[in-house]
Amino acid sequence: MDQKIYNNHNACQNLKRLSQTIKNKTSHLKTLIQTKNRLKNFSMQLDGFFYDFSKQRVNDSILKELFLLARQTGAKKKFSQMVSGETVNVTENRPALHTAARDFSKDHILLNDLDVIFEINKVNQQIKNFTEKIHNKEIKSSAGKPFTDAVVIGIGGSYLGCEFVYTALKSSIKPIINLHFLSNVDIDNFGQIIKTIPPETCLWIIISKSFTTTETMANLNQVLLFLKDNNLDPANHLVKVTAKGSPGDDPLSSGLESFHMFDFIGGRYSVTSAVGGLPLSLAFGFDIFNFFLKGCHTMDLHALNTREENNIPLIAALMSIWNSNFLEYPAQAIIPYSSALSNLCPHVQQLYMESLGKGVSVTGEIINHRTGVIIFGEPGTNAQHSFFQFAHQGSSFPIEFIGVVKPIYNKGQAKSQGVYNHQELWANMIAQAKALAVGKDDEDKAKYFSGNRPSSTILINDLTPESIGMLLAFYEARIVYEGFILGINPFDQFGVELGKVLATNIRDQIKRKNEDTAYDFSSLDPSEKFYLDVLFKGSL
Amino acid sequence: MDQKIYNNHNACQNLKRLSQTIKNKTSHLKTLIQTKNRLKNFSMQLDGFFYDFSKQRVNDSILKELFLLARQTGAKKKFSQMVSGETVNVTENRPALHTAARDFSKDHILLNDLDVIFEINKVNQQIKNFTEKIHNKEIKSSAGKPFTDAVVIGIGGSYLGCEFVYTALKSSIKPIINLHFLSNVDIDNFGQIIKTIPPETCLWIIISKSFTTTETMANLNQVLLFLKDNNLDPANHLVKVTAKGSPGDDPLSSGLESFHMFDFIGGRYSVTSAVGGLPLSLAFGFDIFNFFLKGCHTMDLHALNTREENNIPLIAALMSIWNSNFLEYPAQAIIPYSSALSNLCPHVQQLYMESLGKGVSVTGEIINHRTGVIIFGEPGTNAQHSFFQFAHQGSSFPIEFIGVVKPIYNKGQAKSQGVYNHQELWANMIAQAKALAVGKDDEDKAKYFSGNRPSSTILINDLTPESIGMLLAFYEARIVYEGFILGINPFDQFGVELGKVLATNIRDQIKRKNEDTAYDFSSLDPSEKFYLDVLFKGSL
Repeated sequence: MDQKIYNNHNACQNLKRLSQTIKNKTSHLKTLIQTKNRLKNFSMQLDGFFYDFSKQRVNDSILKELFLLARQTGAKKKFSQMVSGETVNVTENRPALHTAARDFSKDHILLNDLDVIFEINKVNQQIKNFTEKIHNKEIKSSAGKPFTDAVVIGIGGSYLGCEFVYTALKSSIKPIINLHFLSNVDIDNFGQIIKTIPPETCLWIIISKSFTTTETMANLNQVLLFLKDNNLDPANHLVKVTAKGSPGDDPLSSGLESFHMFDFIGGRYSVTSAVGGLPLSLAFGFDIFNFFLKGCHTMDLHALNTREENNIPLIAALMSIWNSNFLEYPAQAIIPYSSALSNLCPHVQQLYMESLGKGVSVTGEIINHRTGVIIFGEPGTNAQHSFFQFAHQGSSFPIEFIGVVKPIYNKGQAKSQGVYNHQELWANMIAQAKALAVGKDDEDKAKYFSGNRPSSTILINDLTPESIGMLLAFYEARIVYEGFILGINPFDQFGVELGKVLATNIRDQIKRKNEDTAYDFSSLDPSEKFYLDVLFKGSL
Repeated sequence: MDQKIYNNHNACQNLKRLSQTIKNKTSHLKTLIQTKNRLKNFSMQLDGFFYDFSKQRVNDSILKELFLLARQTGAKKKFSQMVSGETVNVTENRPALHTAARDFSKDHILLNDLDVIFEINKVNQQIKNFTEKIHNKEIKSSAGKPFTDAVVIGIGGSYLGCEFVYTALKSSIKPIINLHFLSNVDIDNFGQIIKTIPPETCLWIIISKSFTTTETMANLNQVLLFLKDNNLDPANHLVKVTAKGSPGDDPLSSGLESFHMFDFIGGRYSVTSAVGGLPLSLAFGFDIFNFFLKGCHTMDLHALNTREENNIPLIAALMSIWNSNFLEYPAQAIIPYSSALSNLCPHVQQLYMESLGKGVSVTGEIINHRTGVIIFGEPGTNAQHSFFQFAHQGSSFPIEFIGVVKPIYNKGQAKSQGVYNHQELWANMIAQAKALAVGKDDEDKAKYFSGNRPSSTILINDLTPESIGMLLAFYEARIVYEGFILGINPFDQFGVELGKVLATNIRDQIKRKNEDTAYDFSSLDPSEKFYLDVLFKGSL
């Protein structure tokens, strides 16, 4: 909602009032969670995906108003517009069709003269053919050897989602091709990567929509030099994922093959496009990638077709808005009790904070209420030994726990204290959510726990591609819903532009000094000049 | 400061007033940073360590009051008491002597009948001898082979600091023994580790002060089973770092050797003890570890002996208190523009949030002002493509940038757009700090940047062990100073106890069900029962 709506909305006014009553002693979570049928009434299940919001600081009246807010802001209608290809990304004047990348229910989505479904299927077929040839050893390296490794060169949305899915799946599926990720322009990042890959059997996947992303192009240049030093031909070692017509899409330019990505899918929502499709199909085969897409589609259909009161991502969005805008929590932690999900948080951190960290409404007014919160997290139980002291006795923040019902590594386990490791993990996850909610009184105030600290718990059945797909699409849908209800555009990112402009200015100065050692940075401000002098001097 | 002091302290009252004036338009950072000699007056250098707070929302009057606050709370005196072994950890009735672990300036620190320096030197000598024998191949595996790998089994403070230092150093120093880290009780974490290590040449280092840490003991049990399955003798493959007299310190129990850790050094401050000393000496040799200790000592001496106005960690603590308690920022990001420092943030997150996330003053009163903030971060430029949209246009949070003057990988680099990768990295770091501070007006409000977003920048000369030591000790000293000034105990962690107690209860229930499949969890609350039923059923 924009500022006006936020101030005047029926539901908002009621929610503001309710946010005061929920602070009463009688509404402490330790009391709320004892309400009859609390878990049953405050949880939701979809196939192998379970969402428990019974330990959020909400009651029936608050839920009712939150659903009213969703209706009054037209959230479901906007979601439906998004899925059908309307121009929901208004500032950039384009649709946001990541759901089309895994839409098995439609034969066509027309965008002017373009059939989106046809284009996506074409790219997927190309990925299938190409990766099969790599796996069958029809396509080999310039040294005549079959490929064993691939380095994904991309930054932000061009790798975070793919890295999350790769890390999650490789715990149960042995990769045919091992993936590595080179994102940072830091030359030491490149230096570390080349220590770990076999040059002669390594494929390099360059991912950039515009094929002008500074970091990716800088790393590509390092790779070209590296291939040359190793007498390897880029024509046999480079693959590109880029927009049709970008500088990288030149059929005459070096490289094995180009795969298209599209303007109608934003970077951070692009895991299910060729951005994730090519590397994940290389790693596990196209069929596995397709199962992953099916999991996403299951969640998409649920998000699209289910009424507000039973719609899991929509409810999660409402919990998030309740916590950030009414209870004024500034952050949320994501704590998967699963090592395989260790890269989920960095992905969601980007997806969420880049989508919702906005200062302006979709109609162009500056807004003063909170849009999104800080997302951070580490896997449990690790996090318990890291920042859970703060979670229990410092400033409060909501937590999302994630549990996996079936572990992967299941053979020949030892028991400790009468339980298996996976059971120990769950004992801790269950205990933490409860401890945060109920707290504990103690005369020694150093041992006093205020409690009343909210959390949700998500369960997924296993770490199969379908379950990982549902988890990914859950976060995408939830974040989009949150943006729609807040009345902001979750698809643009103008906030990254100013830094780019200023960096270009400084880069130009460095370039001039590289060309002429006598150049003295006198046009810069004293601070910029100081830093560049240190950089060129090579020490403080 | 406790609540009373916080409300009545001279300096606090003045700072509260000043926090209003700094919100005036004329005090916008874009104006502040143009003050004459701003960088010179708001930065500080110690050898190869540089701290720039010129882009913090402070002026001379505020600084003056902050230094007064440091004096009125006796921060430096408390630091000095800490270093000399007084009982600064009052709730646990013991000293906090991590600085003694690298104190090359003292011959003795007496604690009742114990000479701390003598005990530490003895352990270090033992580490030196043992790791030399491993490196010289005098000590071999039970298969008669020299060791190539070591897995550190420990959680929280028993591995985060060591992992940070190992990751930082291995970018420039080739490890003699490769380290791996097994922290999580998640069985999939163990499953992933054993895929990557060679069983016959792998050493397992068990780190637990009490030798009862649930996760560490559960993982130890998995390892014992694994060694048995591989016909390897634990007597040749296990090493322990534990307290004198703990169950793991039994000379008759299996294992190559035990190294002592001490009650007077807390887990999260223990990197410079045997907790980091043994693994890091195995990886790089004891001499490298010793250089690292010397870097820490340089910073310790500076923190101890330098007057408030020139004391880098103390100033950093004051900036943090100003931002959290007076400007009310709820979080701080740490953004190293260096891949090698990618594990710094998880370490500082623990160090900071576990030390300062407290609800009670050192004198036992509940406090309502903020103690510490949420710490999160990713390396730059990655973070720019992840959550910097939020940093520029969402809710504001202070950022600490970290730059390394000399890169490691320096040979045969390609240029892009006229600059080397390392120069590109710096261009971005400099540009981001400036963009956050100055902002940019725009008629199109989607492209408007409010600016006035504070940051600090730290530079270290290089990634040598000395520089990494200075960086580690800087954060330790800064956090301890912040605790002393806030009047809380930065050394205890009672906030993790309640979760442990509740987990024990659930573990007991699981154990009973493991022993008797008919057991039905009827004594648990409906929510706990639901989760355990799902766990035992194996699916939702």
